[in-house]
Amino acid sequence: MRILVTGGTGFVGKWAALALVSAGHEVFVISRTPTTVPGCQVIVGDLLKSETIDAALARARPEILLHMAWYVEHGKFWNAAENLDWATATIRLVRAAQKIGVRRIVCAGTCMEYDLSSRDLCVETTTAIRPVTLYAVSKDSTRRIVEEFVASCGLEFAWGRMFFVFGPNEHPSRLVSSIAVSLLAGRPALISSGTQIRDFIDVHDAGEAFAALALSKVTGAVNIASGRALRIRELAEEIRAAAGGIGELRFGALPDRPNEPACIVADIRRLQDEVGYRPRKTIKERLSETLEWWRAWSIYESQLRA
Amino acid sequence: MRILVTGGTGFVGKWAALALVSAGHEVFVISRTPTTVPGCQVIVGDLLKSETIDAALARARPEILLHMAWYVEHGKFWNAAENLDWATATIRLVRAAQKIGVRRIVCAGTCMEYDLSSRDLCVETTTAIRPVTLYAVSKDSTRRIVEEFVASCGLEFAWGRMFFVFGPNEHPSRLVSSIAVSLLAGRPALISSGTQIRDFIDVHDAGEAFAALALSKVTGAVNIASGRALRIRELAEEIRAAAGGIGELRFGALPDRPNEPACIVADIRRLQDEVGYRPRKTIKERLSETLEWWRAWSIYESQLRA
Repeated sequence: MRILVTGGTGFVGKWAALALVSAGHEVFVISRTPTTVPGCQVIVGDLLKSETIDAALARARPEILLHMAWYVEHGKFWNAAENLDWATATIRLVRAAQKIGVRRIVCAGTCMEYDLSSRDLCVETTTAIRPVTLYAVSKDSTRRIVEEFVASCGLEFAWGRMFFVFGPNEHPSRLVSSIAVSLLAGRPALISSGTQIRDFIDVHDAGEAFAALALSKVTGAVNIASGRALRIRELAEEIRAAAGGIGELRFGALPDRPNEPACIVADIRRLQDEVGYRPRKTIKERLSETLEWWRAWSIYESQLRA
Repeated sequence: MRILVTGGTGFVGKWAALALVSAGHEVFVISRTPTTVPGCQVIVGDLLKSETIDAALARARPEILLHMAWYVEHGKFWNAAENLDWATATIRLVRAAQKIGVRRIVCAGTCMEYDLSSRDLCVETTTAIRPVTLYAVSKDSTRRIVEEFVASCGLEFAWGRMFFVFGPNEHPSRLVSSIAVSLLAGRPALISSGTQIRDFIDVHDAGEAFAALALSKVTGAVNIASGRALRIRELAEEIRAAAGGIGELRFGALPDRPNEPACIVADIRRLQDEVGYRPRKTIKERLSETLEWWRAWSIYESQLRA
């Protein structure tokens, strides 16, 4: 099948695109700058421009649209005005895709759409929706519009709510990467209290889950997560173990964020039972691979600085 | 003050623009085609194009943006894809307005954003939100994004939820106009059961209420309504009385729409007490004026046909 992947050069999207290529599909990715993604045809353009949307759809003529592009600049995206640009780009993309006869649309959402004030598992069909940042409100509101639109024109539509993704190429200041980089550099890893419980998923797994969702017939919201409740303390210990068991974890060295939810964990029955997706490796194995990647990155970075 | 009114040549927006002119402000309206609105400067352009948004803001340099434009083609707008275009245009307009330093933004929403399954008054701060058409979902979702965005950048923002507006220039197939036109032509007016209770407001009053809201400091959602619960039967009788007490009202001649809410009436305390708006005339007087307008229209139409 012909599949267009936006964000297909990005952190998660790249692995989704590669999984779709591996499954034998003809995959097109959109990139702002000329690049290559193995097995994919790259369409260069800026999705915030409607010309790019039209040109990409005309060239790819996709049956399936997997839309993963959004503004995600670390430390800025939560309340950035760019969320408005991506809400409008998404709505325009869906509208244009419907016009040219796309059969199925799958977009990337976020666990932050949920009401996270309880410690219950987030269940797609029953957990209340209560986004509290511009990022999450923009994702949620975009979904509402798209969901109502596709219902009126018979398109298949699914919305993958991503939980906490880690892996190679993550921004080095994020949780897993910053602990990894610190430990590998022989510095103490500065961490908050570490009592927060989160659902972490490896970036390859998240990409493959999105690919599976894109190829399935499942509609509506689907959590993209491991379903494993991991206290940040435990995660940090696992990273330390993966780093060879050396280095210091300084819990409490960073403040907890105000109003941080105690627990954000997904119910993954839809992903497992309806989409039929199972990760190929354990989180322990994935953390190990991630550490190897950061080790190579650290050596490369230190050579650059030398 | 400099005020930019989108939809300022439209059914309600025109009266809002004129009320702002009367109050001594410098008013700019955007129109797709060259036209005149007394006292206003007309900027010709299509708001669905970002060039128009940028050009209009650059020329008007408004302190206040009153955004009333949307797709409202009678019989089509409820589930039209154009709702997506206007959601994106609205988000882009707000984003661009913030960039050039607009101080206050007021947009037109709809009573259809509310959960209308109960017979209770719709109260801005307490009635649940549950839109069920693409039109209402698009309005509601747009509001969610804009509300969160302005909160993050200190802009003043209000959202006027319009109830059932009638008056001159309404589409001749809508409720008040179709009854008026039928009776004035000596034909029986075909009506549904007429048991539905609605909150009707005259278009001049709705426009003036929006102007008052634009000039106030009130933020958040505000119902734009008369607050008067009128059964459609009673409304039809009042129209008949305004038409001179002649003609036949055939209740039950048209089917009720499936799942039509029994009662849609606004709590107008925010509009009255916080915005300080009071209509200058009664609904009876306004229906009388409206009938006079349809009488003139009918004579003109019959001359055109002759």
